[in-house]
Amino acid sequence: MNDTPAPFTEQDYAARMTRAARDTTEAGLAGLLITPGPDLTWLCGYRPTATTERLTLLVLSPGSEPRLLVPSLERPDAEAAPGANALRVSDWRDGQDPYAAATGLLLPNGRYGVSDTTWALHLLGLQEALPLTAYRPLTVVLPLLRAVKDAHEVARLTAAGAAADAAYEEILAARFTGRGESDVAADLAHALHEQGLSEVFTTVASGRNSANPHHRSGDRTLKKGDMVILAFGGRMDGYYSHTARTLHVGEPTEEQRTVHDTVRTAQQAAVEATAPGMTCQEIDRRARRLLRDAGYGEYATEPTGHGVGITPHEPPHLTETDETVLVPGMCFSIGAGVYLPGRFGVRIADGVTCTEDDGRWLNSAEHGMTIVE
Amino acid sequence: MNDTPAPFTEQDYAARMTRAARDTTEAGLAGLLITPGPDLTWLCGYRPTATTERLTLLVLSPGSEPRLLVPSLERPDAEAAPGANALRVSDWRDGQDPYAAATGLLLPNGRYGVSDTTWALHLLGLQEALPLTAYRPLTVVLPLLRAVKDAHEVARLTAAGAAADAAYEEILAARFTGRGESDVAADLAHALHEQGLSEVFTTVASGRNSANPHHRSGDRTLKKGDMVILAFGGRMDGYYSHTARTLHVGEPTEEQRTVHDTVRTAQQAAVEATAPGMTCQEIDRRARRLLRDAGYGEYATEPTGHGVGITPHEPPHLTETDETVLVPGMCFSIGAGVYLPGRFGVRIADGVTCTEDDGRWLNSAEHGMTIVE
Repeated sequence: MNDTPAPFTEQDYAARMTRAARDTTEAGLAGLLITPGPDLTWLCGYRPTATTERLTLLVLSPGSEPRLLVPSLERPDAEAAPGANALRVSDWRDGQDPYAAATGLLLPNGRYGVSDTTWALHLLGLQEALPLTAYRPLTVVLPLLRAVKDAHEVARLTAAGAAADAAYEEILAARFTGRGESDVAADLAHALHEQGLSEVFTTVASGRNSANPHHRSGDRTLKKGDMVILAFGGRMDGYYSHTARTLHVGEPTEEQRTVHDTVRTAQQAAVEATAPGMTCQEIDRRARRLLRDAGYGEYATEPTGHGVGITPHEPPHLTETDETVLVPGMCFSIGAGVYLPGRFGVRIADGVTCTEDDGRWLNSAEHGMTIVE
Repeated sequence: MNDTPAPFTEQDYAARMTRAARDTTEAGLAGLLITPGPDLTWLCGYRPTATTERLTLLVLSPGSEPRLLVPSLERPDAEAAPGANALRVSDWRDGQDPYAAATGLLLPNGRYGVSDTTWALHLLGLQEALPLTAYRPLTVVLPLLRAVKDAHEVARLTAAGAAADAAYEEILAARFTGRGESDVAADLAHALHEQGLSEVFTTVASGRNSANPHHRSGDRTLKKGDMVILAFGGRMDGYYSHTARTLHVGEPTEEQRTVHDTVRTAQQAAVEATAPGMTCQEIDRRARRLLRDAGYGEYATEPTGHGVGITPHEPPHLTETDETVLVPGMCFSIGAGVYLPGRFGVRIADGVTCTEDDGRWLNSAEHGMTIVE
């Protein structure tokens, strides 16, 4: 699983930019304005050293050549990007007004989709330079820009999932009792790194902390009787794994087993519901119905899931309000969770890709309640 | 140097927020809108697990209690922040419109400074919810919000500088010839980590690559005759070191020595010029004049420096266009550089704090041309 996949080519990037420009027209926009971040990386393979106050801007307009405006000092980097030959690079120099330089690339009264993460500094600069131009957040106007993955992208997500599974299996052998959450989190991060993941994230929430879905690993010492939620992932060849498992230190109570089984069944149902034509809302409801029927409805405070790709968390969202229809190639982290305030919580989540027929797991690590010492 | 300084207190954060609100009035604003990032961390000590599409917003208005709006699931984290008792937390729930929730905290026709890094998604949401409210980038209206450091902050910057110096000394003992830039960069990163820095950054630019001020460490193998620029730093107790040194593999040429000496002299002059009452522009000119007089003016393409603090790069900027007057407590990375296209480059940069009298170095690693094997 650790073979490095072939890199994306200039043609891959050209095709993505062409498709994005075409989608732009359908969305009633004059074009897209993309600043450094996942969208820029995905569209043209360019990832500046740092995201700074210096404007870097990709402009996609239907029927026009893609244009990339960069600070002059970063031009060599931009021109070395794998998609650079599929676009035209121009630059602005220190002392020049980058927003004035950008106006030449935009329609003065156009309506543009702009990266969600574009800095306010840059958006305000553009708004001042072109007062009649309108802007809409990219995920509002084109939420699914990166949602449908091609086979090469799914292969990368599969490899990232396998690496995360291997790291998880590895740390099960460790001792848990008497160690701090942060220690265990550091071990898990190390194991993820060893498996070839970068930008790794790990959360260890033990005992009462497991009842807080936004807990960060802290100083608490693990002890017998603790539920322990491990939420973790990382990036491999540009694509993320994002999973969760819940362990128990020593023998669990009957109630703890029941909650774990319920969560597992709910997650399983959501994954089994995954198929082209279903909506995100329906997947979310499938998991929630099971949790509600088991009496845990009010404790299921977290969404069922979200897209994964070159970010660990992206549209579409498996929530009550997202009515996106699933199509083959969409990839998600699908989970279920129950959080009993002040007591304990359980979460199980896995990568899943929607195939032509159904949902295929991107992780295979043991789902049952694993008992550790 | 590695003693952990006392943590900032609720009073520290309260004082910062009060001062910021007061500065707001002087800047002709109704208040400040701060989203996750360095400004939020500095003002109230709150650093959410991740910066996401979920709105987190600190509202500072003169004469009013500071207000922090957070997603309901993140409320426990926000309330645990060290400055939380100096403000009032409110939350919005999934499914609610966070921008509608924010309108209650803003004057409908006010003019607000907004964090530079606020996501366009959020700014567009606020603009839609409050069409008559105006927004200005925080660094435009209040560029010096975090620029003047107190003694506790300078102590942290000093410790970060000492740690970076120690890491640099350490890697001088390594072999350079025959190794890749990325290898050396990884060694340096490891040494910085070992010295207690996190969020470390390292660039190794060798041979012709040293002539590109924005080069990223790559595969190039170091060999005899190479100039090697090391630019590096990291965070300690929340504050950054940001320095650069230039080494030579084997014996340098006469010209290489001359360029190195010139750069060193120019940097020294800029540091010696540092004193209350001087302007950023004057410091920049001081370094440039020396480089120009030595015939390297057109190759001095990088700014002389920039502020450092809880970010590695912040206002004020030591450039031709920044006329900020220095006051005691300001801290900078001050450097000089010459980049001879296609040939080689030299950069030397150090942390410097402006005292009541002059500039005090925050780094003390050897400045002379160090020859490595």
